[in-house]
Amino acid sequence: MAAIYNFNPGPSVLPKVVYEKAAQAVLNYNNTGLSVLELGHRGKEFQAVIDGAMQDLRDLMKIPDDYAVLFLGGGASLQFSMVPMNLLPEGETADYTDTGTWAAKALKDAKLYGNVNVACSSKETTYNHIPKNLKLTAGAKYLHVTSNNTIYGTQWKEFPKYDGLMVADMSSDILSRPVDVSKFGLIYAGAQKNMGPAGAVVVIVRKDLVGKSGRKLPDMLNYEMHIKEGSMLNTPPVFPVYVISEVLKWLKGIGGVEAIQVINERKAGKLYKAIDDSKMYKGTVAKEDRSLMNVCFVIGDEIKEKKFIDEAKKAGLVNLAGHRSVGGFRASIYNAMPEEGVDALIAFMKEFEAKNS
Amino acid sequence: MAAIYNFNPGPSVLPKVVYEKAAQAVLNYNNTGLSVLELGHRGKEFQAVIDGAMQDLRDLMKIPDDYAVLFLGGGASLQFSMVPMNLLPEGETADYTDTGTWAAKALKDAKLYGNVNVACSSKETTYNHIPKNLKLTAGAKYLHVTSNNTIYGTQWKEFPKYDGLMVADMSSDILSRPVDVSKFGLIYAGAQKNMGPAGAVVVIVRKDLVGKSGRKLPDMLNYEMHIKEGSMLNTPPVFPVYVISEVLKWLKGIGGVEAIQVINERKAGKLYKAIDDSKMYKGTVAKEDRSLMNVCFVIGDEIKEKKFIDEAKKAGLVNLAGHRSVGGFRASIYNAMPEEGVDALIAFMKEFEAKNS
Repeated sequence: MAAIYNFNPGPSVLPKVVYEKAAQAVLNYNNTGLSVLELGHRGKEFQAVIDGAMQDLRDLMKIPDDYAVLFLGGGASLQFSMVPMNLLPEGETADYTDTGTWAAKALKDAKLYGNVNVACSSKETTYNHIPKNLKLTAGAKYLHVTSNNTIYGTQWKEFPKYDGLMVADMSSDILSRPVDVSKFGLIYAGAQKNMGPAGAVVVIVRKDLVGKSGRKLPDMLNYEMHIKEGSMLNTPPVFPVYVISEVLKWLKGIGGVEAIQVINERKAGKLYKAIDDSKMYKGTVAKEDRSLMNVCFVIGDEIKEKKFIDEAKKAGLVNLAGHRSVGGFRASIYNAMPEEGVDALIAFMKEFEAKNS
Repeated sequence: MAAIYNFNPGPSVLPKVVYEKAAQAVLNYNNTGLSVLELGHRGKEFQAVIDGAMQDLRDLMKIPDDYAVLFLGGGASLQFSMVPMNLLPEGETADYTDTGTWAAKALKDAKLYGNVNVACSSKETTYNHIPKNLKLTAGAKYLHVTSNNTIYGTQWKEFPKYDGLMVADMSSDILSRPVDVSKFGLIYAGAQKNMGPAGAVVVIVRKDLVGKSGRKLPDMLNYEMHIKEGSMLNTPPVFPVYVISEVLKWLKGIGGVEAIQVINERKAGKLYKAIDDSKMYKGTVAKEDRSLMNVCFVIGDEIKEKKFIDEAKKAGLVNLAGHRSVGGFRASIYNAMPEEGVDALIAFMKEFEAKNS
C-alpha cells in the first residue's frame, strides 16, 4: 500500500514505531503474556510505564521539581472548568485571551467560577491573528492563554510578558518547541495531537497553587487529590498513558524538543513558502502569528477547493479540509508528521496549481 | 508460552479475539491505511464505530428509546459527582446504599450537592453482605445502588423494590446478566471490567431527567450537553470506545447477556462449590449475596496465603490477591475470563490444599 499522510488536526498521526510497539503490546505486553489492555493500574508494570512517562515529560520540558505532572481522563475540555474551580476563588478575577474557539470555551467556563476579564480578542476578524496589546487586571489570579489555535492556525510565538503566573492550554503545540515552564502556574494539553491517542490529558501544575480555592470539590475535580494520589486517584486511562510513554521515548530518542523544533520550523517554513510563492493559494492568518502546527490556506473558489480535497485524497494526502468556520484547507503537521508528508503535499499543491490555474 | 489467566479486578482480561482485532487496528484500521489511534473522531470511520457500539449496547441491554447512551472519559469516579450535580437539586434528598468502598465514595460526593440519606450500610461488618432492609426517604430524587461490590465480592441479586427511579453504578457487573433498565434513571459503568479497557465510562440516562438541576454547570459536567452532542461534545476516548465496540460484538456473537449469565453462573457456581467443599478455603461474604464477578476467599493463615499467591503465579494464575482491606484472595471472573481459567484455578486450589493442609 502506498504511503498515506494523515493531516488530521487531532487525533493525529503518531510515529510509526509507536504503532508497531503498541500493536505488539496489545497482544503481549513486554513478554508478560498479558495484553497491555488488561494490565492492572496498581501493578508494577503499569507503575513503571506512568513513572517513566512522567520522568520523560519532566526531562523533555525541563519541568521544575515544584511542579506535579498528572495524566488524567476527561480531555482538555474538562480542564476549562477544573482550572477556575481550583485556581480562581469566588469573587477573584482571571484574565483570559480570546484567540480562538477553544480559548473562548475556556473563558466561558471560567465565568461560572469568578470574574473574567477578556484581556484581548481577535474574534471580530475570525481569529486571524494574535492580539499584541493585552488589557490586564491588577491582582488577577492568572492569565489564560491558548498557545496554539488549532482551528485558525495561529500561535503565540512569544508568550505575553506577564508578572504573574500564566495558565496555558497547550493541547496543539506541547512538545513542539521549548517552553519556560516556570512562567506558568498550570499547563494542560489533550494528548491527541503531539503526545498520544485521544483519552488522556496532561496537567503540569505548580504544587503550591492547589487546594486554595475555598471550594469543596469532589476529589475527581480537585488537583490536590490527584497530586496526592500520584495521578492514580482512580483508574487512569492505561492504554493512552502507555502510548504517550512510547511517544515521549521516541521524542527523546530523536533529540527532544530542541531537535523537533528545528524540524517543525523547516516543515512549516517550506509549506508556508509554497503558499506564498503560489498565485493560487493564500494563507488565512497574519504572517507573524502563523502556527507551525496547523497551516491554514484557501484557494477562494469552492469548486476548486473540493477538487483539491478529492484529488489529494486519491494521492494519499488525507484530512486536509479546513474547519467549517474557516473553510479551505488545514494541514496539521504535528511532531509525528514526517517531512516526506509535507514534501508530498507541496509537490501535490504545485501540480494542482499548474493544472488548474 | 503456556496460558496465563489474569484474575485482575480491573482493568481485566478481554476476549482474545478482541486483542487480535485491536492489534491489527493499531497498525491498519479496516484497510484504511491509518492506525485506529490517528482516526479523527469526526470522520465517518469513527462515527460508525461509536454508532455501532451504542446500538449494540442498546440491543444487548434492551435500552428503551427514551434513554441516551454516552461514552465519556473521566472514569466512573467522575460520575460520583456528575450524578448529584445533574440529578439532585440543592436542598433535595437522595437515598444511598452503603455497600462498599465505591458506594461510600459516591455517597460522599453526593453530600456536596444535596441531602443524602444512608438507606442502609454494611460497613460495620466490612461490607460482607448486602443489607435487606432499606430506610427510604419519601420524595427522594433517586436511590443509588452499587450493583456489584468489586472489593468485597457482594452483589445485589435482586435490586430493591423501589417506587422511584434508581441510579446504579454497574461498573463491575454490567452486561453480566439481564437488567430491567426502565427501573433506573441512570446507569453508569467504567469500561475496564466487562466492557473494554480503562479510559471510558458508559452512561445510560433517561433523557427527561437531565437539565433540571437548577445548577449552572460547565458543558463537560452537564449530561444535557453530552446528549445534545451525541457523546461527542469533546474528543471522546477513541481507542477505548473502539475496543468496547469489539467487546460488544463479541458478546452479541456468543448470545448476549442471557447466554453469558448462564456461563457466569456456572463459572462462579463451581468456584464457590470448590471453596465450600474444601476445609482450607473460606468464603468471606454472606452466601446469598455472593458476587458472580469477584469471588473472595481466605485461608486465614498469612504464610499459606503468600505461598498460594506465589505458586499460583508460577502456574499462570495471576493477580489473585485480595484487596488489602479484606486480605486473602479475590478471583475476578468477568465475562471474558474463559471457563478453562476457572477450572485451572479450582484444580490448583485442590492441589494446593492437598499439599499444604
